Amino acid sequence: MIRDWVELNMTPGIGPRAAAKLLERFGSAEAVYKATRAELEQLRLPPEAVDTIIARDLLPRAEAEITAVKQLGGDILLLDDGVYPSSLREIYDPPIVLYVKGAWSDCLDRPCIGVVGSRRCSTYGQNAATMLARDLAERGITVVSGFARGIDAAAHRGALEAGGRTVAVLGTGIDEVYPRDHKKLAAEILDRGGALVSQFPLGTPPVSENFPYRNRIISGLSLGVVVVEAAENSGSLITARLAMEQNREVFAVPGNITSRNSFGTNYLIKGAGAKLVQQWQDIAAELPPQIAARLLPPPFGDKKKEKSLADQLTLVPRGLSGSETLVLKLLTADVPAHIDALLERSKLSISDLTAALLALEVRELIRALPGRCFVRKM
Amino acid sequence: MIRDWVELNMTPGIGPRAAAKLLERFGSAEAVYKATRAELEQLRLPPEAVDTIIARDLLPRAEAEITAVKQLGGDILLLDDGVYPSSLREIYDPPIVLYVKGAWSDCLDRPCIGVVGSRRCSTYGQNAATMLARDLAERGITVVSGFARGIDAAAHRGALEAGGRTVAVLGTGIDEVYPRDHKKLAAEILDRGGALVSQFPLGTPPVSENFPYRNRIISGLSLGVVVVEAAENSGSLITARLAMEQNREVFAVPGNITSRNSFGTNYLIKGAGAKLVQQWQDIAAELPPQIAARLLPPPFGDKKKEKSLADQLTLVPRGLSGSETLVLKLLTADVPAHIDALLERSKLSISDLTAALLALEVRELIRALPGRCFVRKM
Repeated sequence: MIRDWVELNMTPGIGPRAAAKLLERFGSAEAVYKATRAELEQLRLPPEAVDTIIARDLLPRAEAEITAVKQLGGDILLLDDGVYPSSLREIYDPPIVLYVKGAWSDCLDRPCIGVVGSRRCSTYGQNAATMLARDLAERGITVVSGFARGIDAAAHRGALEAGGRTVAVLGTGIDEVYPRDHKKLAAEILDRGGALVSQFPLGTPPVSENFPYRNRIISGLSLGVVVVEAAENSGSLITARLAMEQNREVFAVPGNITSRNSFGTNYLIKGAGAKLVQQWQDIAAELPPQIAARLLPPPFGDKKKEKSLADQLTLVPRGLSGSETLVLKLLTADVPAHIDALLERSKLSISDLTAALLALEVRELIRALPGRCFVRKM
Repeated sequence: MIRDWVELNMTPGIGPRAAAKLLERFGSAEAVYKATRAELEQLRLPPEAVDTIIARDLLPRAEAEITAVKQLGGDILLLDDGVYPSSLREIYDPPIVLYVKGAWSDCLDRPCIGVVGSRRCSTYGQNAATMLARDLAERGITVVSGFARGIDAAAHRGALEAGGRTVAVLGTGIDEVYPRDHKKLAAEILDRGGALVSQFPLGTPPVSENFPYRNRIISGLSLGVVVVEAAENSGSLITARLAMEQNREVFAVPGNITSRNSFGTNYLIKGAGAKLVQQWQDIAAELPPQIAARLLPPPFGDKKKEKSLADQLTLVPRGLSGSETLVLKLLTADVPAHIDALLERSKLSISDLTAALLALEVRELIRALPGRCFVRKM
């Protein structure tokens, strides 16, 4: 019965970890409500929570909630539903109930990437978030974020700009829009095939202790999380940590070392194994091979259509220089060529050769091997 | 005999690789000049080089060179001298002759770190180079760089500011100062216990094909190389590649992904295994343990004394007036602020603002840039 799950989820003192304990012991919300006081007390739950469960105090509220969600046009997903997002189910402490609104099923069927960052962010951070979200959404990836001001909002907007899908994971009930001035953003997300998701009952106000719970849903729904900007003690660093604990890929956008907003992201790259992101391809390349293959162009395919960030920024001519072409032709994918051999065969000076090799490497056309050897990338 | 080495080193067509071949075959410069034409020709040297060696055409010039270097107050180090820098001797193709001037021995006895980057750089890059060089030099590390405009000059200057030592590796002869407007910088480097180093004979003009040779000396002398800013096809990336081939640590300072000047450094971190640097400690931590231990405070030691970068940026020095504090807070180290913008944002009168700016400049807290713009000093 939905109402049992909804009731259990709204019981004060029953957070995700207590709920997990209950489900482990009893198997379902229905069974929890058939348990005796003694059985419940063995689990060392808060006494008030046991009282509430035994008395079924919240049953009327749960029933009213189900009706209200329907009236809002929303849905309630239960942890043991077939439609509950499978990637979220596999985390350590999944929400037992998920309130959803909008085209959640279409959104979550696609590969999801979290794009998050500080509320207080720089123009640079906003631009980077918008750009990455747009580039990912354009390729059919659902951009998941936390609907906060700053980077989160920029990420949602970037996805919308691209005509893509985006999921806002709320720290409030799905009937609350917080911050208030994001009302239009929420409407747009729903209008354009996106979704709102929350584990919190209707009417839950924005309280900061709920935000970490929200953050673990963002990473739980996603294959990986990109942190765009984060100061030294930022909540986004906690999201990154949670994502790592969930075995999700963690990406970070670097920034100037003099910017406080980039302190956390630089730190994640330096000290916590986050992958540095310059452009969307850096994210795609780390996704499961079958997804990456769908997103990334073949190396010698339609390169022209895939403008790199550098191309976008510098308008560097796309063609290779004469010496680059020459060197590329001397390389194969199978047999590493030593730099001395290339020097002799190309007749280039050492500086021209080195420059050409480097340019080809940066364009990811060749790979440098140990011992001054080079091969062509497949 | 010094003159044989100097003569061999100035022979056109005998670059480091040909010289290495000759020394491998004959053991010394002296022996090269005792070789027969047939023996030399076996090594596939350029025919003109063989002619020059056999005829000893350059002997008078070599002898004059030795006198001239003495008159300049310089020295000539030979590859088989005991005083030749041992870290440089171990690279793949060390220069057979090193022209040096200044306190080279004191400089090279200390741990050396290369700090390099683009000639065309941003204010951010200059600040980062100055700050890192200063912090390293303050701790007794010799800062090695290439004496070019931009990042290199900022690195030399940072070391000098700290009262530390710095080595300029030139792509010209040690009697040439290039660029010309670095004359004062060269004099300061020498005055303050630094040194100039070059593999090139006196009078060698700045030609771009010599710069990669210079770059491998920078990394060859150093335990590691920090790339501060580098665009996509920058020579600094070649330096990084050479440093990796020499088994040196390679460090890179990240920057905004929207900045062309940081494309190369971000790339080095992402794709080439360079270590991300936020502050000097990140460099020290990767040095050989006995050196790192001398530089770094114990992990649980005087934490309070180690101001984090964020602290350095946010703390307002004591004793500033209200308007000075206000103006300082409006300035960043990265983005120059125009006086008109400061006027608007500070709400000060033009005379109060000008007075505050001047006071801050005198205290060396800010720097005035051309066009009535101001940045914070790092």
